[in-house]
Amino acid sequence: MAGLFDRLVAAAGPTWHSYTRHDFVLRLAGGTLPDAAFRHYLIQDYLFLLHFARAWGLAIYKSDTLAEMRRAQNLVAATLDVEIGLHVEYCRSWGIDPAVMEATPEAMATIAYTRFVLDRGLAGDRLDLEVALAPCIIGYAEIAAERLASNTTKLDDNPYKSWLDMYAGAEYQALAAEAKTALDEQFARRGGEGRFPALAATFTAATRLEADFWQMGLDARVVS
Amino acid sequence: MAGLFDRLVAAAGPTWHSYTRHDFVLRLAGGTLPDAAFRHYLIQDYLFLLHFARAWGLAIYKSDTLAEMRRAQNLVAATLDVEIGLHVEYCRSWGIDPAVMEATPEAMATIAYTRFVLDRGLAGDRLDLEVALAPCIIGYAEIAAERLASNTTKLDDNPYKSWLDMYAGAEYQALAAEAKTALDEQFARRGGEGRFPALAATFTAATRLEADFWQMGLDARVVS
Amino acid sequence: MAGLFDRLVAAAGPTWHSYTRHDFVLRLAGGTLPDAAFRHYLIQDYLFLLHFARAWGLAIYKSDTLAEMRRAQNLVAATLDVEIGLHVEYCRSWGIDPAVMEATPEAMATIAYTRFVLDRGLAGDRLDLEVALAPCIIGYAEIAAERLASNTTKLDDNPYKSWLDMYAGAEYQALAAEAKTALDEQFARRGGEGRFPALAATFTAATRLEADFWQMGLDARVVS
Amino acid sequence: MAGLFDRLVAAAGPTWHSYTRHDFVLRLAGGTLPDAAFRHYLIQDYLFLLHFARAWGLAIYKSDTLAEMRRAQNLVAATLDVEIGLHVEYCRSWGIDPAVMEATPEAMATIAYTRFVLDRGLAGDRLDLEVALAPCIIGYAEIAAERLASNTTKLDDNPYKSWLDMYAGAEYQALAAEAKTALDEQFARRGGEGRFPALAATFTAATRLEADFWQMGLDARVVS
Repeated sequence: MAGLFDRLVAAAGPTWHSYTRHDFVLRLAGGTLPDAAFRHYLIQDYLFLLHFARAWGLAIYKSDTLAEMRRAQNLVAATLDVEIGLHVEYCRSWGIDPAVMEATPEAMATIAYTRFVLDRGLAGDRLDLEVALAPCIIGYAEIAAERLASNTTKLDDNPYKSWLDMYAGAEYQALAAEAKTALDEQFARRGGEGRFPALAATFTAATRLEADFWQMGLDARVVS
Repeated sequence: MAGLFDRLVAAAGPTWHSYTRHDFVLRLAGGTLPDAAFRHYLIQDYLFLLHFARAWGLAIYKSDTLAEMRRAQNLVAATLDVEIGLHVEYCRSWGIDPAVMEATPEAMATIAYTRFVLDRGLAGDRLDLEVALAPCIIGYAEIAAERLASNTTKLDDNPYKSWLDMYAGAEYQALAAEAKTALDEQFARRGGEGRFPALAATFTAATRLEADFWQMGLDARVVS
Repeated sequence: MAGLFDRLVAAAGPTWHSYTRHDFVLRLAGGTLPDAAFRHYLIQDYLFLLHFARAWGLAIYKSDTLAEMRRAQNLVAATLDVEIGLHVEYCRSWGIDPAVMEATPEAMATIAYTRFVLDRGLAGDRLDLEVALAPCIIGYAEIAAERLASNTTKLDDNPYKSWLDMYAGAEYQALAAEAKTALDEQFARRGGEGRFPALAATFTAATRLEADFWQMGLDARVVS
Repeated sequence: MAGLFDRLVAAAGPTWHSYTRHDFVLRLAGGTLPDAAFRHYLIQDYLFLLHFARAWGLAIYKSDTLAEMRRAQNLVAATLDVEIGLHVEYCRSWGIDPAVMEATPEAMATIAYTRFVLDRGLAGDRLDLEVALAPCIIGYAEIAAERLASNTTKLDDNPYKSWLDMYAGAEYQALAAEAKTALDEQFARRGGEGRFPALAATFTAATRLEADFWQMGLDARVVS
């Protein structure tokens, strides 16, 4: 039987590809994304990461077992100890001053997705929280792998190639695979078929908000 | 197939009767409970009600549908608009000054049960919250009905008879029946067999804390 | 000394008027707002109300006193027992089918504001929650009163006049005045000057999200 | 002016010493504590630690800044990566099997204190959470230092001496000092004099629950 993630993707229908194959992604892979769009995205993604760490902190609180706590703790650490530092360095390589990143207000799309996730996690249980986070964690792995496997992707002289490499790399792919396993494990322990429609609604809404996040990047191409 | 509540009671094993047939209950029904024990219980039950209202306020927040919100809202109203007023009057009839009730510190047993319920509700979802509240809401209905049906219960000249009548009355029995139905409805929509062991553990722990609540009353028989 | 609300408005600077004198508001008062924009707004405002009720349910949970619980309970009741019914009727008078309202997905602006409020309320305390809600509750009273007092407002043959009347009416103005008093009371009991900058940041962010909510209405003028 | 912690201790009055100089503590220092009491305490303290880690996970969620997140993350790591492992080893040295620890039900005193803390943290803000945790974190440092400085403490052939050494050691004392500093920093940023009475009530209630935790240990001297 299909894993929970694959079933959620199927239930999302065309919304899934509206996110994973969003114009932002295709132009990034083709090397035609405007610099300003990417830079705007990078800054907002930094602001996103702060709430991503909060979400995994919440997951520690919502854990029933030591093993669950430790997985959430690892994701907090991956975010605060590794990701944020890498992100700051990466942004610097794009000429973005860390002070500017911290001073930029959150875009509406950033607020919408991050707070939607946190609310799902607080109103529901840890499975709701992880389902709301899945389009991000697992989606990025799929996006990068799919783009690198596509012959329309520009591999040479593409300024965004390193971004694809990071998420297509073994380390990130393993993290996404673990997230899939965790979804199945939690669905077995806390779920049941009756719960699937509500989880699918959460997943689809979160996926739409991720697509809006790309769009926010694209829309900024002339602004910043 | 048995409803969720009956399955939870079965899973609780002897813990269930250690609560519903606790010595406090049997002596109350037999009319031999010391006054001081009952009065101590009444004061702590008042403090309990404040957190009971908070729990249903939390359930409003955790609702997915308007119907779910309204059921939680009705229970907040039943508590704040009816129960607390009745309780204050009832306590007054036992010579307890409302100012004393508000000034009494919560007993450890009161803190343990109320905060356990709230934590289950926040760490988990609304089904976890309602399962943690079930020993109280549904249990009181069972206790009162079982006692009134027992021939060891003293029906005449029993100062505690009115307490049994209140919870055995049609209005409270209907409220408990609705709570059972709500458990089934939520288990269908948010549960599944895989979730049963965790729900049963919550229910058993909550039942034990309710038994401790009776014991707290009994232990106070010489104190207050 | 100025009340907390007035200080928060002052701290928001031009953001406040970007919301209270948003083009949507001015055109509504002038009677030139496109029908489709208003209808889109009305549907999203219905979806907003569901989360508004959740926010006040959360406030019941976060209450320290019976009086605080009762105020929050009254706002839940005002929303679920009065507002939502009125809203459904009002929408019907604009030709909007209740079934359509419930089936419409939340706009990003609706998600952003509602979940921002709930997250502030959960990450912070009740004062944070009420400050995040203030641009909505108190702002609507100010908007309606200011528009009705303006000589640029079209009072005759303005299809939106009844909307202004509702929020400029004595009942709603009293509710807004109570909300101001509650902010002062809570700032005295839970606040302090050191806390003002964080509260002002929350208020300004919430105000910006309210302005985005109007903009979402305007942007829909050709869509729906 | 006195720091917040010292003011909270002063406001707690005799409740503070009823905890820090509880008979359990004095007998531990005097080497006369029954083995069974200490072992019961150790097992419950292990169960306590799981919720302690959850509380700091919650603090990550409730953080406003990266620095606040990192401090909470460090305390999660100190608990899950260090404390729990040390605790398991220490318990093993007292002949307690880890499997027994995990299978032991939480005592009422454990439930009461841990869930009280979590509820304060969720109903209130991070300052409420840290104030509720302060009797534990900072109190243990004071208890151990005070006992080692007392000439009634048995330093030789005292099986509990290593416990005192651990909490009186430089590492733990530094952690407690940081917790004091964090209280002051948060009181400056999120507090104010108006808030002091509510914080003092939380601190005193938490202190009483800590005293109950020692008592739970003592009461078990013949049971396990």
